[in-house]
Amino acid sequence: MAEAIKLARKGRFTTSPNPRVGCIVLDASGELVGQGYHIQAGTPHAEVHALRQAAERANGGTAYVTLEPCSHFGRTPPCADALIESGVSRVVVAMTDPNPQVSGQGIRRLRDAGIEVVCDVLRSQAEQLNRGFIKRMTTGLPWITVKMAISLDGKIALANGVSQWITGPQARRDVQLHRAASCGVLTGSGTALADDPSLLVREQQARFDEYPLETLRQPVRIVVDTAGSLPETLQLFRDGFTTWIASASGAAAASDNVINLPTGRNGKVDLRALLVELGQRQLNEVWVEAGPLLAGAFFADGLVDELIVYQAPKLLGSEGRSMLVLPEFTALNQAIELELQHQCQVGNDSKMTYLVRRTG
Amino acid sequence: MAEAIKLARKGRFTTSPNPRVGCIVLDASGELVGQGYHIQAGTPHAEVHALRQAAERANGGTAYVTLEPCSHFGRTPPCADALIESGVSRVVVAMTDPNPQVSGQGIRRLRDAGIEVVCDVLRSQAEQLNRGFIKRMTTGLPWITVKMAISLDGKIALANGVSQWITGPQARRDVQLHRAASCGVLTGSGTALADDPSLLVREQQARFDEYPLETLRQPVRIVVDTAGSLPETLQLFRDGFTTWIASASGAAAASDNVINLPTGRNGKVDLRALLVELGQRQLNEVWVEAGPLLAGAFFADGLVDELIVYQAPKLLGSEGRSMLVLPEFTALNQAIELELQHQCQVGNDSKMTYLVRRTG
Repeated sequence: MAEAIKLARKGRFTTSPNPRVGCIVLDASGELVGQGYHIQAGTPHAEVHALRQAAERANGGTAYVTLEPCSHFGRTPPCADALIESGVSRVVVAMTDPNPQVSGQGIRRLRDAGIEVVCDVLRSQAEQLNRGFIKRMTTGLPWITVKMAISLDGKIALANGVSQWITGPQARRDVQLHRAASCGVLTGSGTALADDPSLLVREQQARFDEYPLETLRQPVRIVVDTAGSLPETLQLFRDGFTTWIASASGAAAASDNVINLPTGRNGKVDLRALLVELGQRQLNEVWVEAGPLLAGAFFADGLVDELIVYQAPKLLGSEGRSMLVLPEFTALNQAIELELQHQCQVGNDSKMTYLVRRTG
Repeated sequence: MAEAIKLARKGRFTTSPNPRVGCIVLDASGELVGQGYHIQAGTPHAEVHALRQAAERANGGTAYVTLEPCSHFGRTPPCADALIESGVSRVVVAMTDPNPQVSGQGIRRLRDAGIEVVCDVLRSQAEQLNRGFIKRMTTGLPWITVKMAISLDGKIALANGVSQWITGPQARRDVQLHRAASCGVLTGSGTALADDPSLLVREQQARFDEYPLETLRQPVRIVVDTAGSLPETLQLFRDGFTTWIASASGAAAASDNVINLPTGRNGKVDLRALLVELGQRQLNEVWVEAGPLLAGAFFADGLVDELIVYQAPKLLGSEGRSMLVLPEFTALNQAIELELQHQCQVGNDSKMTYLVRRTG
């Protein structure tokens, strides 16, 4: 199963909106006869790749799949049926389908056909790989990771706004991989105006070990522009890649590229409503690269799942701009509690990955 | 030599104002026949312990010493003479004496006596162990480590001042060892008034692997009180351990416990003058546990060698109190540059150790 999860990981840049899935087939004697992973929506699922490779040697063998095989006709026929037809006698599954509407149906179908099914093998690793898909299937909302580049004293810029660059080139390269693995990259109108960023994956900078497609899949950009007043001359709107504008102005008619939303706190775009819409648009993971105001609003609204911080070994001083604008807390138990998952050095900077335990 | 440095480390809580020194003696056949380390000023040096143990087996052997043997009569006779008398034929030295007035004299004395001397073996490790002593000998100033306990967003307290506790119990225990290894612990009048801390090493909390003395050596406390107005009722003045007041008021006559100083920036105690005085009082290492104002002043004056940060996985928000009050920087090259030396997890917190490369 660990091998199947490794295979699944190879699809992490390209499968969305589908989950990342890997599959390994052993023959009756335990020899590896087939392996595969899902590459892109609309193309064959992991099981199909692996079973094709195994061909008749799958007969009497065992299939390891990182996610419960599907039982319905989508753009491809049900994998449960393919497994049954292959003649495997045993299927080991890391996790059941998180979609409550179909969860368990694939496994039932296999069992009804007389196949032995073992579940929950390396389940937490498999879940980790598809936490965005799981969250969308169970809550309707995408998985939200906020990224910030800060100094040791928690500043993103000097008081006068100067901020390029706080972290080093290795940290900025690392960001490319996170963007590439995300369905969407989200920013605010302030950042769009101040930096005129492209927010695309810079192919030359991203260090992919391997990439399963010939063309880089770019995440969709989402820019929160409450007033709907960003100029069309920005890179985001001129480079030919997709950008969605989330606005509360109603100035433009709703369309593929315009999301009209109600206002929430402080008269700004209601961020929860935005995430509902992004979930409906099938985004599993959204990578937020925003300024202190918008990022702070995501935290204040309790919408953040993960925080990734690149921390430079610098002190910008108390007059610098704070990483997050948050309401004033009056007791320590109102503070936002995080859980450190990893820390490592990236160039001269520290990279810290936190899960958000509780927002203030 | 690595063994000798390990021995020297055993003295790190107790040798001051003397340096930490370890010594190993091998006999002519290369067998370990003596080892020792310096424990406390006024008691025998490392070489004497090791040579006593080796006795006549030192004859024709080799001594490894982490610091150049002394050549002068202090409270104990010169170790260079002891080595000559022992009959060793070879002395390996990690680093020369940093005191420019005597550096090289011990080695010359050994060589004049026909002993082969090898220098600079594991020198940087040996220097690391005595960086406070080295700095005092070469500049007259103690080594300054500023310690801060902060949130991920660089805050030490909420806007209303609430701060106990930001970091966890393991981090607070770790602090005890740093206090114990320091000659002095320094704070400001603000912290003294707000928290009424003892700043002593809490013996029950400190987790010493081994401690060479029966009684814990407490660091001297230094409190910066420009106005000389702290009440005598504070713990610092009542617990029977030594506290020095650094004041610019001249209200009290200079004494062992009162350091009268000129004013520096902003009409506060001139910190450089204070460090000169602390150097004259033979403090090798001073551990600063102060608030954002005093700690910031140490940085702004370019007086900090090392910064140790315990960073809690929490966001206290932009309204919280910043870790350091610093002048406003207008260009990124004015920012204080640090160099990350170590990072590790201490309980739920991250501990980062930085050298200060350049102050703004």
